[in-house]
Amino acid sequence: MKIVGISGSLRKNSTHAGILRTVAAHLKEKGIEFTVVDIGGFPLYDQDINDQGLPVNVQQAHEHLAQADAIVLASPEYNYSVTGVLKNALDWFSRVENQAFNGKAVSIMGASPGMGTARSQYHLRQILVFLNAFVVNKPEVMIAQAGGKFDDSGDLTDEGTIAFIGKALTSLIKLADQLKK
Amino acid sequence: MKIVGISGSLRKNSTHAGILRTVAAHLKEKGIEFTVVDIGGFPLYDQDINDQGLPVNVQQAHEHLAQADAIVLASPEYNYSVTGVLKNALDWFSRVENQAFNGKAVSIMGASPGMGTARSQYHLRQILVFLNAFVVNKPEVMIAQAGGKFDDSGDLTDEGTIAFIGKALTSLIKLADQLKK
Amino acid sequence: MKIVGISGSLRKNSTHAGILRTVAAHLKEKGIEFTVVDIGGFPLYDQDINDQGLPVNVQQAHEHLAQADAIVLASPEYNYSVTGVLKNALDWFSRVENQAFNGKAVSIMGASPGMGTARSQYHLRQILVFLNAFVVNKPEVMIAQAGGKFDDSGDLTDEGTIAFIGKALTSLIKLADQLKK
Amino acid sequence: MKIVGISGSLRKNSTHAGILRTVAAHLKEKGIEFTVVDIGGFPLYDQDINDQGLPVNVQQAHEHLAQADAIVLASPEYNYSVTGVLKNALDWFSRVENQAFNGKAVSIMGASPGMGTARSQYHLRQILVFLNAFVVNKPEVMIAQAGGKFDDSGDLTDEGTIAFIGKALTSLIKLADQLKK
Repeated sequence: MKIVGISGSLRKNSTHAGILRTVAAHLKEKGIEFTVVDIGGFPLYDQDINDQGLPVNVQQAHEHLAQADAIVLASPEYNYSVTGVLKNALDWFSRVENQAFNGKAVSIMGASPGMGTARSQYHLRQILVFLNAFVVNKPEVMIAQAGGKFDDSGDLTDEGTIAFIGKALTSLIKLADQLKK
Repeated sequence: MKIVGISGSLRKNSTHAGILRTVAAHLKEKGIEFTVVDIGGFPLYDQDINDQGLPVNVQQAHEHLAQADAIVLASPEYNYSVTGVLKNALDWFSRVENQAFNGKAVSIMGASPGMGTARSQYHLRQILVFLNAFVVNKPEVMIAQAGGKFDDSGDLTDEGTIAFIGKALTSLIKLADQLKK
Repeated sequence: MKIVGISGSLRKNSTHAGILRTVAAHLKEKGIEFTVVDIGGFPLYDQDINDQGLPVNVQQAHEHLAQADAIVLASPEYNYSVTGVLKNALDWFSRVENQAFNGKAVSIMGASPGMGTARSQYHLRQILVFLNAFVVNKPEVMIAQAGGKFDDSGDLTDEGTIAFIGKALTSLIKLADQLKK
Repeated sequence: MKIVGISGSLRKNSTHAGILRTVAAHLKEKGIEFTVVDIGGFPLYDQDINDQGLPVNVQQAHEHLAQADAIVLASPEYNYSVTGVLKNALDWFSRVENQAFNGKAVSIMGASPGMGTARSQYHLRQILVFLNAFVVNKPEVMIAQAGGKFDDSGDLTDEGTIAFIGKALTSLIKLADQLKK
């Protein structure tokens, strides 16, 4: 099994990059291959660009996703929705033939100072209906009051939350197995 | 009264740019100043960039918005939500002090081959709750089966739809007047 | 000015009835008339019943609402959405001519053991788009970790939350004044 | 395999009851047991009632659901959301131990004069996240401009739509099989 992660935040010390490092550590223990796809260099989506050919970095990122059995979206909440950065990447990916999300299991994970990105996660779920992905329902990973749970470099340090992400990955792997049937 | 428009699509012959040209024509007749703010040159939002100072084009666009009494968002639907391009612009604008959307009247207008962007408009409404804008309820501008209603350059040619946008602008102006009280 | 409240919970010691008692106390101080409309006796909506005439209790409740300048919806969250009880009442009200919500200011207030009904409030906002009501954006009243903030009879006892509801009512009254213009 | 259906509309000649008759005909051909659970006699949800014991008709309906491998929700749109009638039933079902929706495949089907219940279906999907059900993504059954597609008794007569529902059931059965793994 291969799993691919995407962070919806671009800043260097992002807590969402930190979430993906926690995911990586869990999956390494389980012997599951995990890579993170970078979306920070994508241009803003413009159909005129797309008509001239998919940008190379979009194409390469999509190929990684296409080979995944499951996807982890580390998705911050900006203005009560997903980040423009993440949505821009999904807009690009949706223009590729042989879509990478189609029929796959997805886990959404978010952290915020308030409610842990609850408001945005249902937007992301609606987007993923279009992409025909199936999102894990239980547990939902909404890391609330995130301030004290990450260090300055964005690493997740709260033991309870680290263990909780492990449970979420178990759910993701189970759902991915079911959907491969 | 001044109104500012934003298109969530970047392609040259976008129907959403066309919607804004129809808006411009209506407002010219009414003697209301209307300008369109370009968001195509914004970088992908990155807090590390923001920490070094707001990009100049974001700052300038925000100043135009700040002077508006009302805002028209011509908002396409990609993957059942707003475009990453538009969300990226809103993510930038939300980081500016003295926020441009605060307390203002907004009209959402969208066109699509299917349902006319219905699925995405409620996402945009939720985003605008955070920005403390008030969105016109009646009429909702969802231009369905848009294919035959625009020409190849993106100009709106359907007379009924042109008139309908006029009604939506009347509602927007009324709401803007009420909120200025 | 007259304000009418509705609770989406029917149990005797409901915290949402308690929220409305706090609203009543605030409005009494301000000299604003406030009444609560009971929706617990409504039948489940059935068009065949409606075709034979609107039930008397629905009609009477709607008349109270129609006379209001603003409406407070004390709205619990069940299963990530509004209660069936509240939705059933709104379904009935939407069938009456001269709709009571049309053009009015609404404040949504909710309490829950978790996030304070955040997930459900955007559903209620979407419903209110159809009813052409305008919902206060700031502040949003989401009383989280509600367990310790109410007593056993459902009365709100947390001073900070009581004051916060006062602020929300100030916003509601301002919006109602603007929309009456 | 057993499938259970629920209609969110109570009127005798409901098109949503008609949708379930079309479902029944398809499933009979496939040799799959199908029953419809009636929710019209449920009281409005009230925790005080629940504290005295689950109503008998709720209990019986829930037992049917619990034995199902998959569930079809024929869900009308009232006021841009699910009906109070359907939500009330789900509120009751969620209070039963050994929850009937947990881990199951669900298909949502709706018909309306306009967009075919698109606005409400994402509300129902959010509700079903809480209930830990997995909803078919493709195809979405949104029967638009429904007026000419049903007869006066609510029977679906449009051949294309009848066939489309067959495809949706194929997707439902596949997802149910995957989730049983």
